[in-house]
Amino acid sequence: MAQRDTETETTAPVSASKERLRLWLRLLKSTRRVEAQLRENLRTEFNSTLPRFDVMAALARFDDGLKMSALSGVLRVSNGNVTGIVDRLALEGLVVRMQVPGDRRAMLVQLTDKGREVFAAQAEAHERWIDDLLGGFTPTEARSFSDRFDSITNLDEEDGQ
Amino acid sequence: MAQRDTETETTAPVSASKERLRLWLRLLKSTRRVEAQLRENLRTEFNSTLPRFDVMAALARFDDGLKMSALSGVLRVSNGNVTGIVDRLALEGLVVRMQVPGDRRAMLVQLTDKGREVFAAQAEAHERWIDDLLGGFTPTEARSFSDRFDSITNLDEEDGQ
Repeated sequence: MAQRDTETETTAPVSASKERLRLWLRLLKSTRRVEAQLRENLRTEFNSTLPRFDVMAALARFDDGLKMSALSGVLRVSNGNVTGIVDRLALEGLVVRMQVPGDRRAMLVQLTDKGREVFAAQAEAHERWIDDLLGGFTPTEARSFSDRFDSITNLDEEDGQ
Repeated sequence: MAQRDTETETTAPVSASKERLRLWLRLLKSTRRVEAQLRENLRTEFNSTLPRFDVMAALARFDDGLKMSALSGVLRVSNGNVTGIVDRLALEGLVVRMQVPGDRRAMLVQLTDKGREVFAAQAEAHERWIDDLLGGFTPTEARSFSDRFDSITNLDEEDGQ
């Protein structure tokens, strides 16, 4: 019983595709776990949700506001969801909707001052949570992983083939 | 104009938390892109979907079948979705549902022989797609990234705090 199982040492090496498949499954698992924790933190600390956070994050990057159509393009959630989220944010005074001059059907959404303030607090907490959840990566390692992922999984250029 | 902008060289280094935030955003982007491509491939090559693939993958690991409740636990999709997916797979002859002996309300779901065959072809293609999409990672690199992610983002143990 104390004898080591030497079988494992003579096993054929795992194929390249199996290593990549393993990496993919780990990545999926890791990102889902981090996302689940973010959802939980947003809920308990800010009584908010990830789609709300994503909508506000998108709006925070555009001082002049975003059209509803652009906003739903920024997010992975459906157009319908964006509408619902913006409705709620507007009710809470975090965003305002304005008519786009010269385009009757287009609506521009913009963070209010209160919205900016609330989002700034959430963004700061979000950065802290990520720093904590991914704290095992050194800054150098984080940077090198980012760069590798960015260069390798940049699939946009391959769309046309 | 030809003079290089030396400003950037004296800029303060990016903070550790910003590097980790950048890594997180890249990871999210990369996994979403790979997932989008997998969805597209499953649709065009097998007229199938990622949730269907996930359900069949879960069933393929359990020769004796899985209870509906366990199946929905395995997946990120909601219980309701699992039911709809299993209904469709059953209609297509890929799975069978059986009563659990001694438990009137529990249903066991199992892949049929045809289901195993169909899934084997999809799993082989899936491994090939991942090998292609993540082909920029060497096998050694893929293994070392997997191991790092696994050790760092294993958040299960922290649930209790």
